[in-house]
Amino acid sequence: MATIKFKEMSQYKIEKTPVPTEDYGYNKYVEHIGMQMKSHNGVIGVALFGVGRAGVIHLTSLLKNPRVRILYIVEEDKSKWDALKNYWSLNDIKFLQSIDANHVYNDKNVRAVVVTSPTYTHETIVQNALEHDKAVFCEKPIAEDMEKSRRCFEKAKKVGQPLLAAFNRRFDAAYSSVRERVRNGEVGHVNTIKVCSRDSPLPSTEYLKISGGIFHDCAVHDIDMIVWILGEYPIRVAVAASANIPEIAELNDFDTVAIVLTFASGTVGMIDLCRYSNYGYDQRLEVFGFKGMVKVENQQPIQGIETTYGLERKTCPMYYSFATRYQNAYVNEMEHFLDVVEGKEKIKVEPLDTLAVSKIASACEEAARTGKNVEIKWDPEELPKFNH
Amino acid sequence: MATIKFKEMSQYKIEKTPVPTEDYGYNKYVEHIGMQMKSHNGVIGVALFGVGRAGVIHLTSLLKNPRVRILYIVEEDKSKWDALKNYWSLNDIKFLQSIDANHVYNDKNVRAVVVTSPTYTHETIVQNALEHDKAVFCEKPIAEDMEKSRRCFEKAKKVGQPLLAAFNRRFDAAYSSVRERVRNGEVGHVNTIKVCSRDSPLPSTEYLKISGGIFHDCAVHDIDMIVWILGEYPIRVAVAASANIPEIAELNDFDTVAIVLTFASGTVGMIDLCRYSNYGYDQRLEVFGFKGMVKVENQQPIQGIETTYGLERKTCPMYYSFATRYQNAYVNEMEHFLDVVEGKEKIKVEPLDTLAVSKIASACEEAARTGKNVEIKWDPEELPKFNH
Amino acid sequence: MATIKFKEMSQYKIEKTPVPTEDYGYNKYVEHIGMQMKSHNGVIGVALFGVGRAGVIHLTSLLKNPRVRILYIVEEDKSKWDALKNYWSLNDIKFLQSIDANHVYNDKNVRAVVVTSPTYTHETIVQNALEHDKAVFCEKPIAEDMEKSRRCFEKAKKVGQPLLAAFNRRFDAAYSSVRERVRNGEVGHVNTIKVCSRDSPLPSTEYLKISGGIFHDCAVHDIDMIVWILGEYPIRVAVAASANIPEIAELNDFDTVAIVLTFASGTVGMIDLCRYSNYGYDQRLEVFGFKGMVKVENQQPIQGIETTYGLERKTCPMYYSFATRYQNAYVNEMEHFLDVVEGKEKIKVEPLDTLAVSKIASACEEAARTGKNVEIKWDPEELPKFNH
Amino acid sequence: MATIKFKEMSQYKIEKTPVPTEDYGYNKYVEHIGMQMKSHNGVIGVALFGVGRAGVIHLTSLLKNPRVRILYIVEEDKSKWDALKNYWSLNDIKFLQSIDANHVYNDKNVRAVVVTSPTYTHETIVQNALEHDKAVFCEKPIAEDMEKSRRCFEKAKKVGQPLLAAFNRRFDAAYSSVRERVRNGEVGHVNTIKVCSRDSPLPSTEYLKISGGIFHDCAVHDIDMIVWILGEYPIRVAVAASANIPEIAELNDFDTVAIVLTFASGTVGMIDLCRYSNYGYDQRLEVFGFKGMVKVENQQPIQGIETTYGLERKTCPMYYSFATRYQNAYVNEMEHFLDVVEGKEKIKVEPLDTLAVSKIASACEEAARTGKNVEIKWDPEELPKFNH
Repeated sequence: MATIKFKEMSQYKIEKTPVPTEDYGYNKYVEHIGMQMKSHNGVIGVALFGVGRAGVIHLTSLLKNPRVRILYIVEEDKSKWDALKNYWSLNDIKFLQSIDANHVYNDKNVRAVVVTSPTYTHETIVQNALEHDKAVFCEKPIAEDMEKSRRCFEKAKKVGQPLLAAFNRRFDAAYSSVRERVRNGEVGHVNTIKVCSRDSPLPSTEYLKISGGIFHDCAVHDIDMIVWILGEYPIRVAVAASANIPEIAELNDFDTVAIVLTFASGTVGMIDLCRYSNYGYDQRLEVFGFKGMVKVENQQPIQGIETTYGLERKTCPMYYSFATRYQNAYVNEMEHFLDVVEGKEKIKVEPLDTLAVSKIASACEEAARTGKNVEIKWDPEELPKFNH
Repeated sequence: MATIKFKEMSQYKIEKTPVPTEDYGYNKYVEHIGMQMKSHNGVIGVALFGVGRAGVIHLTSLLKNPRVRILYIVEEDKSKWDALKNYWSLNDIKFLQSIDANHVYNDKNVRAVVVTSPTYTHETIVQNALEHDKAVFCEKPIAEDMEKSRRCFEKAKKVGQPLLAAFNRRFDAAYSSVRERVRNGEVGHVNTIKVCSRDSPLPSTEYLKISGGIFHDCAVHDIDMIVWILGEYPIRVAVAASANIPEIAELNDFDTVAIVLTFASGTVGMIDLCRYSNYGYDQRLEVFGFKGMVKVENQQPIQGIETTYGLERKTCPMYYSFATRYQNAYVNEMEHFLDVVEGKEKIKVEPLDTLAVSKIASACEEAARTGKNVEIKWDPEELPKFNH
Repeated sequence: MATIKFKEMSQYKIEKTPVPTEDYGYNKYVEHIGMQMKSHNGVIGVALFGVGRAGVIHLTSLLKNPRVRILYIVEEDKSKWDALKNYWSLNDIKFLQSIDANHVYNDKNVRAVVVTSPTYTHETIVQNALEHDKAVFCEKPIAEDMEKSRRCFEKAKKVGQPLLAAFNRRFDAAYSSVRERVRNGEVGHVNTIKVCSRDSPLPSTEYLKISGGIFHDCAVHDIDMIVWILGEYPIRVAVAASANIPEIAELNDFDTVAIVLTFASGTVGMIDLCRYSNYGYDQRLEVFGFKGMVKVENQQPIQGIETTYGLERKTCPMYYSFATRYQNAYVNEMEHFLDVVEGKEKIKVEPLDTLAVSKIASACEEAARTGKNVEIKWDPEELPKFNH
Repeated sequence: MATIKFKEMSQYKIEKTPVPTEDYGYNKYVEHIGMQMKSHNGVIGVALFGVGRAGVIHLTSLLKNPRVRILYIVEEDKSKWDALKNYWSLNDIKFLQSIDANHVYNDKNVRAVVVTSPTYTHETIVQNALEHDKAVFCEKPIAEDMEKSRRCFEKAKKVGQPLLAAFNRRFDAAYSSVRERVRNGEVGHVNTIKVCSRDSPLPSTEYLKISGGIFHDCAVHDIDMIVWILGEYPIRVAVAASANIPEIAELNDFDTVAIVLTFASGTVGMIDLCRYSNYGYDQRLEVFGFKGMVKVENQQPIQGIETTYGLERKTCPMYYSFATRYQNAYVNEMEHFLDVVEGKEKIKVEPLDTLAVSKIASACEEAARTGKNVEIKWDPEELPKFNH
């Protein structure tokens, strides 16, 4: 009976383990039971522009969100209208082509616009929506080049409406937790920050042709993770890049990239990027300082299954693609946008963030193409404040 | 360049890794993009009875489900009505007390009834709803005793309406995957099947008084997992049980239980149960045969974060409670119910299942109280067919 | 530069992370560099009886141990002598048959005897060696039955020489660490303790015939782990057992066993045992109390390798057999014996330990054969003190 | 009884799981039982030069190795002689100072020389030992500069004796397994290879002064891992390096380094290096190609222990230092050397390997100091054949 002496007072009389902050859903459940406050100020009228690969993600999420009513879907391809109505039972939503988009802009019930149409259409929609005092959620990039993007942000500032650039990974629970830990000093000053990002499935060559290249299409996300966590911008980049897939070489693009970033504070950053991983969507991040290390490993759609058959010890696959790995991040991102619309939260993606990240991506591409390091000069006004 | 000889043909020309079945969400996403068929036959009218701890879970899920429209909420406590309307923006739902429940039964638009009110009210609601040709989803237990439950199932059979007993774990992706593997013979004949189930948070003594005791409140879920996976019923049980918390001892209940089940085929089953784990909701399962082992370990609300600070190497906590661990299972369970209502799926919880599990739980309790093994005799008619 | 404020004082000026106690080898390395004290009192002369499957393990370990010189090998099978001399380059060791064992007993240079011959020979060797004031290390069991074992322990006590029964798992670093944590109250009073033990490779039927049966051959180790960690003996056992392999059924033995142990303090114990696991030597242990849980998972000969090829995510196999899983435990066990011989440590396996464990194993076998629970009565004198 | 149909034929009648190659020790155990062949050709006489931090590791290993007899220890510091004799019970070993090293060279019984004395003494000892037809094992670096090293290798070639440069990580079981998998094409052509190497404990500033700098002291090991696994040499390096510890900055050295290597075949390499990790000796490696990924995670001195106390889920620390992480590698390395001495194995570290690695380390240092990429030109004769 060597352990009976450890029989404590009744478990009813000692302090309980608190609900872990990680179990956000449980706290939500407790809030739902308590119903202490009305969660939201009525339903928000929304118009959705474009129902392509990104549009479907936001459409699914908006349809399930009791805070929102979709009033308009603006989709150029009229042949998709019936399928959409039929598949999703969309009886109350008006379908338009962009030529008739004025109905959206002039409808006072439309409080917010979600832009998931092709990149070349972004600027016009964003400018029009802002002009008519709508809040705007826009898939990355905001516009076709940095100058046009800058003009969009200026318009948003002028009319006093939010313009949220959809940097979905900032709304991922794991990455957010890492950022919070780093900003609280858990690892100390950061010595090394590393991101590994390998895409799945292999994108079509059609897509690659219009993708803007691996640096502006992919690396921007990884660069954003690094600067968003660090709150610091690199002063130099070095890159090793290769095209191991012939079709990608023919496009004068790269499929495999290694980036090293130098920061003035003494931090070094590393990005390991590939256009294709045959084992799923590989997304990892690690931050190391003299106080220790925090990292995020890959996640699985079904956690916790292990099989051990003879000499084979296996676990289940990781997520296959961004659409499921960041599914919750997309939902959180939209909730954040709605909270910004309702004035409950400060916007978490500043205009300068997206511009600065593009500038770094351009420097990386130059480094890859020249085989030389590229120094980056920052005008103080270009640098986001990172006060969010 | 020792590995350049492995440069295959272009990745565009070889067979791609298929989407893993585990990434159910990605397949759903692809289906959403394709919109090949209308997913559902119009909206299903639903009435919800009771908005307590279980009711909130189903209310949340029903409100987000575009397949469903909630027409009535029957909730005895009138003081909660305004809070519910206000908190959830429920403008179109009629609130009733049970005295007016006839409005529900007589409304032809109500296709299905979800019963999450207190146990003693179940039988009446179930019988009335079935009598009026509604499909019924009912939280466990169906009724206060086995005889009343049996009568409910008989009524369901007679009127030809589904009566789904909510065994939520059967709809968990991980447990379902294990069952499928076992039934496919991946581990061979099962030598040993083990379940570990430790609750969190510690239930209140008020709840424990009306819970029915650890065997009927908790062990039934673990017993169900074992027989559902095996497709076989035990012929003998042995139990070691103790009450290490004084308040639980005073209730003549147990907090810590070990069960051993003997099966005629040569399988042995083990259940390890506790009313309280201070580290979260511990849910594990393992199946072992001469071909190998498959198991499900605990799951985390945020996967993949690891911190290594000095000598401390940590990972994030597991889920705190059933409400989040089985959140997706609750959603799947409701989708299954709706599919049954629409005639798209065969019901996955047979009436006999719940009755057989109760009988085993009673045998376990007897074994715990007498300190002796209990033999279980099965009438062939009592045994579910396990053909689903 | 959001993290530059965390730049601490120089790492040379702050307290360093201590060497973890788990890294026993590093502390040993530091001791070797310092050479502060002579580690041992001269070389210990040893005689080894029997070079079978267990004997080879101890022979290998003794040959590499600079504290020891093997003076005699007593091996009945003369045909093995030359092979042994040749294979191991044993030029200075005298080979004998047991008929000439008196040379060993009468040689003052033999300080210790290691007994790894067949069970039926143990008692005679142990008694003779003790009679001649040798310390004795003896593979389990000490003798063919409890009465003979008791007499051996009495002789050891009388002559004042150590008689170490080789319970190797007590010298495993992981299990020792768990015991220390439990005894320090890390999990509080133990609610549940579980051992999983599945053998690999499948033992030959020839061996099974003389093994004494699964309870006395295998379960004793698991029972010992439980009582050694708890410091408490069970008062009741319940067992479900089956023979799923026909050859084992024919021997009237079992291959699959589930044991539940009831302890007076309120602890429950569970043992899950199988004669054959096709995926390696499965050895796990878990201790749970209201303060938390500590467990030992399986170990691998090569740690840390993970492969992810398409949908296959694998890790390396666990140890194949006891000979490698407990390789270090065997070495530690022998070092402990030598420390006991030199008076540096108190013996860690008390005579009563082995007798009590046998008694529990017999009760388990009775429970398996009768299908009934078995109560165990303990005479206070039978109970080890567990003060080590 | 849904799984009884999977009851196979008796386990005695079906093919058994083979012993995994990873469980090298078990195969050794089986070999020991069989004693089919004499393992070695008599005992090898060895002289050890220098008993410092590396010398102690080899001394410990040589003393436990029955293949070897240490005949001489050459140690300048006479005050250590008695401590060594006393601590290790070294009665038969002759102690000398280097002034009397001729006794070693002229002793025909000395078959091999192990050089673990300070770097500046290496060349003389190596040349003398080779001149007298001894096999030589020499801690890295072979000599103070590349030219002197080259002369040593030329002498070895001329006299036909092995000169093994101690690249211990090549003898680590996990890294060797990864190399074998990569060379077998398991991941296909390598897209990306990454090494993470963070030292523990923090080296003294005294040591750092004579260390040769982080590139030649540390990075050489990581560079060697990469080129040894790939069988290819980089054509360009880019580096980001910083000194976050003031004392290291004062030495004009770096503590944090990120290296990117470009290879002609299209592979990119990444090295992440730090002089100090407060959580132990962090050693990881990952190889990625279009067929998948293989990696080696950190290893622990005690595997498999997990504790879950409230919200804290922990595992045991990793190894604290190289001395334990690579303990088995040191033993394997020495065994390999002895096998080379006995003509049983081809030498696994070619002279060119060490020279090529030094050249790359120098290029990295240049890149770090100039902030520019450095191109590396290879004379075909400089490139090892990698045919081992």
